[in-house]
Amino acid sequence: MRVILNTNYASHNGAGEVHHGELVPCFENPTRIDSILQTFKAYGVTEYQTPEDFGLEPILAVHDSDYVDFLQHIWQEWQAAGNTVDLIPYIWSASGLPANHNHPSLNARAGTYAFSSDSPITAGTWESTYWAAQSALTALQQVNQGQRAAFSLSRPPGHHAHAGLYGGYCYLNSTAIAAQAALTQGASKVCVLDVDYHHGNGTQDIFYPRSDVLTVSLHGHPDTNFPYFLGYDTEIGTGDGEGYNINIPLPDGTAFSTWSKQLHDISDRIHAFGADVLIVALGVDTFEGDPISKFTFTTADYLTMGQQIAAFNLPTVFIMEGGYDVGPIGENVYNVLAGFELAK
Amino acid sequence: MRVILNTNYASHNGAGEVHHGELVPCFENPTRIDSILQTFKAYGVTEYQTPEDFGLEPILAVHDSDYVDFLQHIWQEWQAAGNTVDLIPYIWSASGLPANHNHPSLNARAGTYAFSSDSPITAGTWESTYWAAQSALTALQQVNQGQRAAFSLSRPPGHHAHAGLYGGYCYLNSTAIAAQAALTQGASKVCVLDVDYHHGNGTQDIFYPRSDVLTVSLHGHPDTNFPYFLGYDTEIGTGDGEGYNINIPLPDGTAFSTWSKQLHDISDRIHAFGADVLIVALGVDTFEGDPISKFTFTTADYLTMGQQIAAFNLPTVFIMEGGYDVGPIGENVYNVLAGFELAK
Repeated sequence: MRVILNTNYASHNGAGEVHHGELVPCFENPTRIDSILQTFKAYGVTEYQTPEDFGLEPILAVHDSDYVDFLQHIWQEWQAAGNTVDLIPYIWSASGLPANHNHPSLNARAGTYAFSSDSPITAGTWESTYWAAQSALTALQQVNQGQRAAFSLSRPPGHHAHAGLYGGYCYLNSTAIAAQAALTQGASKVCVLDVDYHHGNGTQDIFYPRSDVLTVSLHGHPDTNFPYFLGYDTEIGTGDGEGYNINIPLPDGTAFSTWSKQLHDISDRIHAFGADVLIVALGVDTFEGDPISKFTFTTADYLTMGQQIAAFNLPTVFIMEGGYDVGPIGENVYNVLAGFELAK
Repeated sequence: MRVILNTNYASHNGAGEVHHGELVPCFENPTRIDSILQTFKAYGVTEYQTPEDFGLEPILAVHDSDYVDFLQHIWQEWQAAGNTVDLIPYIWSASGLPANHNHPSLNARAGTYAFSSDSPITAGTWESTYWAAQSALTALQQVNQGQRAAFSLSRPPGHHAHAGLYGGYCYLNSTAIAAQAALTQGASKVCVLDVDYHHGNGTQDIFYPRSDVLTVSLHGHPDTNFPYFLGYDTEIGTGDGEGYNINIPLPDGTAFSTWSKQLHDISDRIHAFGADVLIVALGVDTFEGDPISKFTFTTADYLTMGQQIAAFNLPTVFIMEGGYDVGPIGENVYNVLAGFELAK
């Protein structure tokens, strides 16, 4: 399988995130990709494709232009104002405090565009997230050019980012950008399958009123898991999109067998949708050792997951999302791709 | 002047607040009151009245009952869930992420009830904020019983708290609670004068549609100062309340002479309103040395401020709000009260 590596993956490197009452080192950091590269090397994967630059257009097809402008320029403004630490929002426009996307204060602007304080904006945030998106688009290009599948190995992740909101370590939603680009480039229907431990709230929100993208997410139940406010099975889409969003929230402690059965149970709906392309939001934070997640998947389970994804028999773009147990992250990702390939 | 001391002022003692990209020690901490008590002692003030307990009713006359219930019980739930650090919200219900006041996750509930991450909830938060409110009500009682003025010396402050939102170091809005109680106890009209460096967004929001409370706030301009989203001079009230909210945002670096002239310029409007009681939200973070504010008032200026407040010639309840330069905080507060008394 072709692997596209976001060579700017390390530029975004936050000092810390607000996590359950403390400022802790960022779980989402460059060592995640370092570790995957190391494991891949051990498995004989040494060739990586460099992302092509498709520019801002496919990004703006998904994200609000003022939001993209914010992400692109906020660090320079923040630095010019004399700040040396990361930008972490500490006030936000709650109900009764009117949002202002043009607020002269960078703190207020960040608090208007963010929904969580776990996602610092740093010197390299734009560079990393821009090339993560380009990397996803390059993976799509490979599939459009006839490859059965391709993998975008990149960070930061994207699936929590809304059209105009960042949070959950996500800035640009590479998964949604690739899904939209697939349509723009000729697909009639796209299915996004989000296997990350966390609900893909951004992707859901972006395609919520639409019937040309079926968004499916299996994840830790929002009663007890980030992003809390979205991810319930009652969220089925709206208007034309009604019936085109499927959430499968699962309890803490869920094992792969349960997860796998749930995916199997909705396979007919996915097949019936008739997608031309499958975009997989590939998080491996479902792993039993993940520091911020609560499923109990084993490394071997990811082989089966890959095989199960292959059974949809669709051109498939894998896009790297979460996974924070840096030790086995490479094996887990490799196994999904290997399982998929084995099922050829 | 009678001084009512919230004897539980030290119970709320947060470990840290998110401030411009870092977790820093809380600016709003018990040493503020310790320091005032020390200075007051040096000036010969040694008698303090203990707050009476007026119960929840006057609090519920201002705050939503579910919010009060949240403040009262969240720490126990947080602790029962095994947490040992303060509760600081790190995700919030931004636009597109629906608020849920009954969310099973305490993180999500905190993010629904908070508008900033500078206000930790700790073991003693409820106790301190409850008795801060009772302290304000006791000061009002003194005035209702014929005292010309009384001062509630307490923390945490209150003026940023909305009917159902905490933030800016504020949980229960003692100022609004005292203003509402004054009406309940027979006043026809109440004027709230907020002289804290920061806009009294909570007090404004609570009385925004009403004409029986004139809310006046002079403060650092929201373009560059907390709470950013509110405090503009275009916010004049709504419906029956139109014309009953006055905001005077002033630029960074403003000296007392300018501030004083601005207050003088609207004195006629305050007189014309015909309040029965004046509630002063007394912050002294307008001081030149304040670590999070940008006005340049001197200690001597506060004497003049007190005299200017006395000129409204109304029964007056002073309620302690902000002020974070712990060194001279006692002198600055004392001078406001002394200036007021001198103007007898």
